[in-house]
Amino acid sequence: MELLYEGKGKRLFATNNPDEVIAFFKDDLTAFNAQKKSSEEGKGKLNCAITTLLFELLQSHGIATHFVRKHSENEIVCKRVQIIPIEVVVRNVATGSLTKRLGVREGTILNELVEFYYKNDSLGDPLINDEHALLLGCVPHTNLLEQLRKEARAVNAILTPFFAKRNLRLIDFKLEFGLDSGNALLLADEITPDSCRFWDATSNEKLDKDRFREDLGNVKMAYEEVLSRILS
Amino acid sequence: MELLYEGKGKRLFATNNPDEVIAFFKDDLTAFNAQKKSSEEGKGKLNCAITTLLFELLQSHGIATHFVRKHSENEIVCKRVQIIPIEVVVRNVATGSLTKRLGVREGTILNELVEFYYKNDSLGDPLINDEHALLLGCVPHTNLLEQLRKEARAVNAILTPFFAKRNLRLIDFKLEFGLDSGNALLLADEITPDSCRFWDATSNEKLDKDRFREDLGNVKMAYEEVLSRILS
Repeated sequence: MELLYEGKGKRLFATNNPDEVIAFFKDDLTAFNAQKKSSEEGKGKLNCAITTLLFELLQSHGIATHFVRKHSENEIVCKRVQIIPIEVVVRNVATGSLTKRLGVREGTILNELVEFYYKNDSLGDPLINDEHALLLGCVPHTNLLEQLRKEARAVNAILTPFFAKRNLRLIDFKLEFGLDSGNALLLADEITPDSCRFWDATSNEKLDKDRFREDLGNVKMAYEEVLSRILS
Repeated sequence: MELLYEGKGKRLFATNNPDEVIAFFKDDLTAFNAQKKSSEEGKGKLNCAITTLLFELLQSHGIATHFVRKHSENEIVCKRVQIIPIEVVVRNVATGSLTKRLGVREGTILNELVEFYYKNDSLGDPLINDEHALLLGCVPHTNLLEQLRKEARAVNAILTPFFAKRNLRLIDFKLEFGLDSGNALLLADEITPDSCRFWDATSNEKLDKDRFREDLGNVKMAYEEVLSRILS
């Protein structure tokens, strides 16, 4: 298969269908804009399974996504999209970069705050406002930014109660969107403990990539725990 | 007089009128969040004269400002306001932090791009979006953010042609706003070569605080040149 793109967590391959690609989930772990790197055997499979279940959940609630079907333990088939170079972050609880950047107290409850980051590794994915997004050509018009915010909030409105029933707090998450060949906006990329923060609702134990970022250990066990709760 | 507040460029004093304060313009020069410091004898007087003329100009065009009258060579009388802790930046040409942060080419013409920065020295005045401004309590409601953008663009629409006639390019500038005792929004702070970038329209020579930031020399001469062009 022709490799179309290699990111930090996935490889994208062409298929015989020009409108579909295969996403392969790698075991690589990276943090802090890839300044910290490691690998965790089996993480790719876990993320592939989690993404599959969450995209199916979202689609069943009417969210348009790039997900087509699971292809193998590590692979999903996706609709081919032109990725919008904006990382859309939804925050329900203040932690991580937000607390450092704005001096907001860790754990502050947020009203599903939405942020846009310019998806550009060499610049370190800087925070942007709507006018920057237009200047940088991330989107053709400002309406699409409103649509991104609306879709991101719709995803949050589905995922937050889904995880709450499974005793997990969805702290924050990062989404990426793309436009398909017909210019329809589709939720793309992945939804995994690499791209979300999950805290156990009882203990506030971290069950996501922060275990790697902060050297808390048991990274794979946390991802397994998230998968088993999704399946419960 | 009772000192109410000391900032990097000015001191604010109480007066006998509870609705008015006196702003004293210091000779101090600071840059990079006060990591670089110096002083330039006479700069305070120049900034006081420039601010006076520009606030009078803006008021004559209908912009509501805190400016009441010049009080001395270094002082103006202002209406007392509650400062909104947002630095409103208007950019007509890309330079400075924007080019570094977003990889935009120096000199790119912008469509009066507006940015909000959280006015907080200990955090280094971080860029914020509208939702951050509400979270941080900078403004009581989102309408006020729209009003800030509108006022900032109105100021730009007056100042840019005013300086263009004087062979100066208004590259970018930072505004601060406040609410008076009746909750009216007033343009506050100062408009000077400390808070604006001015380039000679023929040579693109910098005639503002970048001369200090970049050790270009002749800081005071540049401020004198800006004043003399305003008076011309």
